[in-house]
Amino acid sequence: MKKNILEIRVRYVETDQMRVAHHTSYFLWMEAARSELMRTNGMSYRTLEERGYFLPVREAHCRYRNSLKYEDIALIETELLEIGGASIKLGYRIFNKENKSSIADGYTIHPFTDINGRIVKTPGFFREIFED
Amino acid sequence: MKKNILEIRVRYVETDQMRVAHHTSYFLWMEAARSELMRTNGMSYRTLEERGYFLPVREAHCRYRNSLKYEDIALIETELLEIGGASIKLGYRIFNKENKSSIADGYTIHPFTDINGRIVKTPGFFREIFED
Amino acid sequence: MKKNILEIRVRYVETDQMRVAHHTSYFLWMEAARSELMRTNGMSYRTLEERGYFLPVREAHCRYRNSLKYEDIALIETELLEIGGASIKLGYRIFNKENKSSIADGYTIHPFTDINGRIVKTPGFFREIFED
Amino acid sequence: MKKNILEIRVRYVETDQMRVAHHTSYFLWMEAARSELMRTNGMSYRTLEERGYFLPVREAHCRYRNSLKYEDIALIETELLEIGGASIKLGYRIFNKENKSSIADGYTIHPFTDINGRIVKTPGFFREIFED
Repeated sequence: MKKNILEIRVRYVETDQMRVAHHTSYFLWMEAARSELMRTNGMSYRTLEERGYFLPVREAHCRYRNSLKYEDIALIETELLEIGGASIKLGYRIFNKENKSSIADGYTIHPFTDINGRIVKTPGFFREIFED
Repeated sequence: MKKNILEIRVRYVETDQMRVAHHTSYFLWMEAARSELMRTNGMSYRTLEERGYFLPVREAHCRYRNSLKYEDIALIETELLEIGGASIKLGYRIFNKENKSSIADGYTIHPFTDINGRIVKTPGFFREIFED
Repeated sequence: MKKNILEIRVRYVETDQMRVAHHTSYFLWMEAARSELMRTNGMSYRTLEERGYFLPVREAHCRYRNSLKYEDIALIETELLEIGGASIKLGYRIFNKENKSSIADGYTIHPFTDINGRIVKTPGFFREIFED
Repeated sequence: MKKNILEIRVRYVETDQMRVAHHTSYFLWMEAARSELMRTNGMSYRTLEERGYFLPVREAHCRYRNSLKYEDIALIETELLEIGGASIKLGYRIFNKENKSSIADGYTIHPFTDINGRIVKTPGFFREIFED
């Protein structure tokens, strides 16, 4: 299914006193990366919300293997793993751009909801755009 | 006018590789402190928004004198400095709780707006609650 | 094993345009809660680092069941689940203080490392303090 | 003196329940923009720290004129305004890339310090690189 790679440079604010990017930044990068995946496939998440569909996070997971320093560039490789009846699952692999070493892996699961937070079925137009 | 003190413990995520709380955290503490000031005076900012009034930030300033480390406790002394015709100004003084040393000072200015972001006059009920 | 409950009030900055606390805030609360768990048991994480031991995050997981709004108070119930030979695992249950509804569950796994990031054995003093 | 423009796309996490980018994000963008300014002139802030020089924030100011929404692209125009005897001042102008409307202005002031936080004179190599 759809894949994408987003480059992100580690910001100073993201470092902590261990001198590496804080573990919560990885979830921010995953969010930015799935936004980018949707946008580059012609259906931005902003547009999705304008159509009345929302993708809150039901589950988020990250496994950290290595660390990143200030000014390092992370590559966030994102893949839409599953389009379910009322939810989607995305997988992420994070690399250090410089030496391609593996930094972290993760996934997120998102139900489709309406503006009131009620679960709704995966819209047909979403499936059409994102299924190969 | 109304004053308040909020205690905040520096979180690990707030440190950076200089081993002190990052300068942007101070603005987050000021925000939490003015929320607390409103809440303890009987008109929470949540209620204000429910009544259709918003207080976005028009200006924010901070002067840093000293730093705070992870697990230090900051005291954020907040004062409502001015209630103008269509805006308010708050002042903040931040101390290290342990030794009462001065850490930073700042201020924020906020127009009153409606839900569409249009400037509106300071509501009478706000003045009644927050003017001495 | 050791348990703790930390209260956290949702900040305005933590809301997003879905009008609820953003999913990454939960990981920040878990971090603050495990700091509190250590501190209230007489061995703060700051002291641990001063002794040359670090607990970076190897794995972080959260399952979101419900949402929290601005100014809601979250209870983060934290439990030290396992003390392994060279790592620890903590579990978290997040509730809405007002109605005790379950908001989220999560866990984190942390290896012990030295200042250079090398894995080391769980120090004896840690086991003594945190094992019942 | 040296100028630079950095593009930043507003992330979902940066929105708040007013549906616009939170005011603290602007300070994060300014930080990323001054990092970029230094890097593109051949002296990254990372290198500066490796040489034993630090630029903590002594003063930060922002005047907000307009707001940015999720997925909007901000242009952060950064200029090194002054190189003083022991500090520097930078100015920032933030625009909406789409329509070039002015969103905010700000400045930051930074003393030079050594690794212990003691003020030191502006190093000669800094002046050579950044003075025109």
